[in-house]
Amino acid sequence: MKFGGTSVADLDRIRRVGRLVAAEVAAGKRVAVVVSAMAGKTNELVAWTDGAGAAAQGLPASDDEYDMVVASGEQVTAGLLAMTLRNMGLRAKSWLGWQIPIITDEAHGKARIDEIPPEKLAAAMDAGEIAVIAGFQGVTRDGRIATLGRGGSDTSAVAIAAALDAACDIYTDVDGVYTTDPRIESKARKLARISYEEMLEMASLGAKVLQTRSVELAMSQHVPLRVLSSFVEPGEESGHSSEGKGTIVCDEEEIVEKRIVSGVAYSRDEAKISLFGLPDTPGVSSKIFGRLADANVNVDMIVQSHARSEGAANMEFTVGKRDAGRTIEILRAAQAEIGFEDAQLNEDVAKVSVIGVGMRSHAGVAKTMFTALAEKGVNIQVISTSEIKISVLIDAAYTELAVRALHAAYGLDQL
Amino acid sequence: MKFGGTSVADLDRIRRVGRLVAAEVAAGKRVAVVVSAMAGKTNELVAWTDGAGAAAQGLPASDDEYDMVVASGEQVTAGLLAMTLRNMGLRAKSWLGWQIPIITDEAHGKARIDEIPPEKLAAAMDAGEIAVIAGFQGVTRDGRIATLGRGGSDTSAVAIAAALDAACDIYTDVDGVYTTDPRIESKARKLARISYEEMLEMASLGAKVLQTRSVELAMSQHVPLRVLSSFVEPGEESGHSSEGKGTIVCDEEEIVEKRIVSGVAYSRDEAKISLFGLPDTPGVSSKIFGRLADANVNVDMIVQSHARSEGAANMEFTVGKRDAGRTIEILRAAQAEIGFEDAQLNEDVAKVSVIGVGMRSHAGVAKTMFTALAEKGVNIQVISTSEIKISVLIDAAYTELAVRALHAAYGLDQL
Repeated sequence: MKFGGTSVADLDRIRRVGRLVAAEVAAGKRVAVVVSAMAGKTNELVAWTDGAGAAAQGLPASDDEYDMVVASGEQVTAGLLAMTLRNMGLRAKSWLGWQIPIITDEAHGKARIDEIPPEKLAAAMDAGEIAVIAGFQGVTRDGRIATLGRGGSDTSAVAIAAALDAACDIYTDVDGVYTTDPRIESKARKLARISYEEMLEMASLGAKVLQTRSVELAMSQHVPLRVLSSFVEPGEESGHSSEGKGTIVCDEEEIVEKRIVSGVAYSRDEAKISLFGLPDTPGVSSKIFGRLADANVNVDMIVQSHARSEGAANMEFTVGKRDAGRTIEILRAAQAEIGFEDAQLNEDVAKVSVIGVGMRSHAGVAKTMFTALAEKGVNIQVISTSEIKISVLIDAAYTELAVRALHAAYGLDQL
Repeated sequence: MKFGGTSVADLDRIRRVGRLVAAEVAAGKRVAVVVSAMAGKTNELVAWTDGAGAAAQGLPASDDEYDMVVASGEQVTAGLLAMTLRNMGLRAKSWLGWQIPIITDEAHGKARIDEIPPEKLAAAMDAGEIAVIAGFQGVTRDGRIATLGRGGSDTSAVAIAAALDAACDIYTDVDGVYTTDPRIESKARKLARISYEEMLEMASLGAKVLQTRSVELAMSQHVPLRVLSSFVEPGEESGHSSEGKGTIVCDEEEIVEKRIVSGVAYSRDEAKISLFGLPDTPGVSSKIFGRLADANVNVDMIVQSHARSEGAANMEFTVGKRDAGRTIEILRAAQAEIGFEDAQLNEDVAKVSVIGVGMRSHAGVAKTMFTALAEKGVNIQVISTSEIKISVLIDAAYTELAVRALHAAYGLDQL
């Protein structure tokens, strides 16, 4: 069971988490719980590390001392939840990354888990103890605290489930994975099951239910994953434990009722860069994207087109909105060398995507998308596709309209 | 160098601490720094543990989970100070209790340090690193975080100094040990030196400069101790490093200029219990104080007197103010068995003490005290003495008057 920051934001919520844990124990399960820091605490700690000098030098705040500071938030929650469980008459013990140990590499601030020897944790659980584990943190081989990057508690939970050969339930502020954002489309339906691949695309395309890395890890380690709500009391809805609730994330083969499209995602976090009048010669793309890669700018959608004038091309691509200003500066500084005539930035764009493993075997998915958008008068600026998703970049003002049109076009309203 | 909570209360103060550390390093010293939690943080954490259930059950919040939570405060400060030092161009690394390790017993919430293997710490310092150590915490032999009790960072600092065969400078919000509280007596003087024994009495009698246990440890381990202010910039007053500042706490033999009385301390934290009409028979005291010891109530001053009526006695003693109500309840519940006629509680009392190793060899110290108080019309309710101190219990309203009278009577104004 993993609980995020909003689920443990104060003592009342920690007590509710305690009751949810107790219900699972009462249902005969052996439970390990992974917790995030109380909502807002990590931001407070990060702000202090900024103030302590890292930000002042423009450096990424990601050394071992940054990790020493920010890892303390999860430590507090783990202790408080273990106390709460004990006061409910249950046996519980908190665990920090170094106590298990969760061994990571030395990439402080965004460390990857190398290994979790499960012996100590399993022995405690075999002895009847609920293990309450501080998420987001591990320890390097030379004994320094390391953190896994924002949202890393999801990854902690999946990695621990893999080490214990257990299933992983991610409790969050929504009660499952929806066909689209219910705040935009009230007809959005909760999915009973979704495949790892689809969840992965949804996560990377803007649905903020799970951290991308945690889904990758669950897929590669075959950890049965479930998303469900922490904002209910045990016993509400069906049964006393969590049986049958939420959305299960699993292998494609385990989904009986196949759909062509499982969901519609959107993101307003990207910006479009347009370069006009590029020389139509080999090597120009590598000049552009080489520079951006050197500056650690991630580029997403890319389209190249030939201009009307002979021997010239245009290029459009998207980057994260927070990198947009920097990207334009980098390009303008290299304008002479790259040889473009004009560069434009458009931050007023949204990426809308349809995701579904059924696309692999069904033709006509793209056509349905383009037709639905055309009928609503939505102009498509850039298109990109993968095996199981199609994304389009559109004017941001049309986001909700496009999401609703696509949700209807693929019949997701009637799931 | 040890810095308490008010010295590291915010990032500005942590930067000032950084400059004080840098000045010592520049003066050629190898430095280990012990830090407390930022002022207020430990209280916040303790309040959460209360809310998480311990207080609700009336239990002392002192298990391993309590320690897990409250130890996080020092972790944050240690990381922030190490970052600050690095950003000043110095080499520094933070250390938690388990990383050194500081091995304690298993008395969570008030653990005692068993052992500090100095090898790792010494190796890092030999390699030119400033060691920034989270105070207040250690680790049990089975790998659980343990805290040393309130003010425990002083003890951490002295224990680490002992392990490293180093001197220990305690930086606080006063610039040394004074002959009495300067807020009461503006003529109070800073002492250049004070003996461990005197410091110990001062600490236990209400002067809140150092934790009692830390002074005991410094005395037994022969750690040269110094108290000085963190609220100055390096280079202010004399020199650039801390040479010659503050008050040195040392063996009596190292103090050249002996004084009969070194200081006047006071405490308003005690309450007086009076029992009237006790049977004047053997065993009555053990009935009373046996019960209080069983309930973990510490009794301080005790006076027994015979009443006028034949075969009856009265008893007066003091307990900590927070234990007072409980003490009266315990006694009343056992009234029949103990056999007293009436029990009274007086919380409106203060204990005023004069301390000095010179008392051992000088007669007339008590007479000076009683005369000075009598001249000001201060009535003495209870008297207790040790080899190097005399304490009197008086009406709390006379506290300041008594402190000033005694300060003058022993010539402390003219040090």
